[in-house]
Amino acid sequence: MARVVVDVMPKPEILDPQGQAVAKALPRLGFEGVTSVRQGKRFELEVDDAVDDATLAKIAETFLANPVIEDWVVRRVEP
Amino acid sequence: MARVVVDVMPKPEILDPQGQAVAKALPRLGFEGVTSVRQGKRFELEVDDAVDDATLAKIAETFLANPVIEDWVVRRVEP
Repeated sequence: MARVVVDVMPKPEILDPQGQAVAKALPRLGFEGVTSVRQGKRFELEVDDAVDDATLAKIAETFLANPVIEDWVVRRVEP
Repeated sequence: MARVVVDVMPKPEILDPQGQAVAKALPRLGFEGVTSVRQGKRFELEVDDAVDDATLAKIAETFLANPVIEDWVVRRVEP
């Protein structure tokens, strides 16, 4: 059994209304100094050892990220 | 300027319908061997160097995560 993390973030050129909302709210709430907030998704998968990197890449690209508007990183982590 | 990543995941005892939906769909779509999928959020912040760890912890707990149902990790990353 292996643990895999897939981080999915909006591409830099894509507007990120959720992140912007957080960034704009912080000064109003007394927290200065945060210049940018981007919000994305994090997936944690448990996969059989038989699942290879190519399969993981395909799963991430097809089902976890939207390649048009998002960048993503797949990595295996220690259990 | 420092980069900070905040990973927010549903607590283990909390149902995660989004993750379960992905996990259940994968075998149907031809991908076997994924036994669990959990979906959370990833925030990437850019903050002034003057922002200390205590402030970051407060921001994460108050605005980025829901402490009742989510666990979170704050970490500074290399730019």
